[in-house]
Amino acid sequence: MPEVFLSMSMSLDGFIAAENRSPEHPLGENGMRLHNWLFHEQTQVDGEVARQLFSETGAVIVGWRTYIDAIHDGWGSKNPYGVPVFVVCRRTPSERDQIGGFNFVTSGIADALALARTSAGDKKIWLQGGANVAQQFLRDGLLDELHIHLAPILLGKGLRLFDQLGKTVELEAIDALRTPGATHLKFRVRR
Amino acid sequence: MPEVFLSMSMSLDGFIAAENRSPEHPLGENGMRLHNWLFHEQTQVDGEVARQLFSETGAVIVGWRTYIDAIHDGWGSKNPYGVPVFVVCRRTPSERDQIGGFNFVTSGIADALALARTSAGDKKIWLQGGANVAQQFLRDGLLDELHIHLAPILLGKGLRLFDQLGKTVELEAIDALRTPGATHLKFRVRR
Repeated sequence: MPEVFLSMSMSLDGFIAAENRSPEHPLGENGMRLHNWLFHEQTQVDGEVARQLFSETGAVIVGWRTYIDAIHDGWGSKNPYGVPVFVVCRRTPSERDQIGGFNFVTSGIADALALARTSAGDKKIWLQGGANVAQQFLRDGLLDELHIHLAPILLGKGLRLFDQLGKTVELEAIDALRTPGATHLKFRVRR
Repeated sequence: MPEVFLSMSMSLDGFIAAENRSPEHPLGENGMRLHNWLFHEQTQVDGEVARQLFSETGAVIVGWRTYIDAIHDGWGSKNPYGVPVFVVCRRTPSERDQIGGFNFVTSGIADALALARTSAGDKKIWLQGGANVAQQFLRDGLLDELHIHLAPILLGKGLRLFDQLGKTVELEAIDALRTPGATHLKFRVRR
């Protein structure tokens, strides 16, 4: 079965978005600071991390808020992944709010994962966020790996990736690669 | 002036203690799991990290809760640091609750730091925690470095190190050393 991994950028104090999120600032004011390793400060190592992420991925899963905020508004109404994306949502959006390459799953994360598996082939499934679906996947034990791109900043407040998980999850640290923009941490979820 | 650094063990979801803290479990149930790198799983690299920490330290600062919980109850009523310790507290404890080598500072973190500076000589000052004094030091811009020993676990709930800081702090990642028990991260605070 294809591996399922989470890959997200997070501040040292645990935030994946800053405060005051808006269509102009989908990650909140100062939130793009978390992605310096991809944009303003990308080194060769960061570039390799990003290339590997995209080349290993056969299907992507995102939550509704991520779809609307980051993709619909911020990414020019295109599927930037080059592979099928499955959006976990309460209801299928109107035609106007649908983008090609995105599939809408209203029956929960297990179904979204099953559909992603049929699309991923022998590649991996990237859970791209946000926090809500990430926590659902962690609670239900559906993740094999966590890839955290730890940005060297304390945001002070914002949206937490691991807020109120309410469950202990044992991990194994399998990689730590430091660049100026992020420390790329990989963990395997112990079962 | 001697460098001032924080050195604490933290779970990937940001906790420095688990829930249900008690005299028997000063770090909460399962909380000792954060310190596996020092105890159950110590490697040669972890040992070197600990040796360096103690050898570079000329004075230690702790909060009241850390004094009571970890030191008074858990550490056999001895100063385990081999250097003067300054306890930030609201009032000086009764003689019965005082341990040799610990100095009680009731006038705030700035005074505790000034006293620590006079004791540290050319060595560094280790802010040992807990979360409350750590946040006070960060808010007031009194830390030069953060040393976070990131334990490969999501505790799910507990006491957060960086809760509600309410301020953005820019950091520079200067080290990342992975062992089975922890990924030892060092950050310099940008000014």
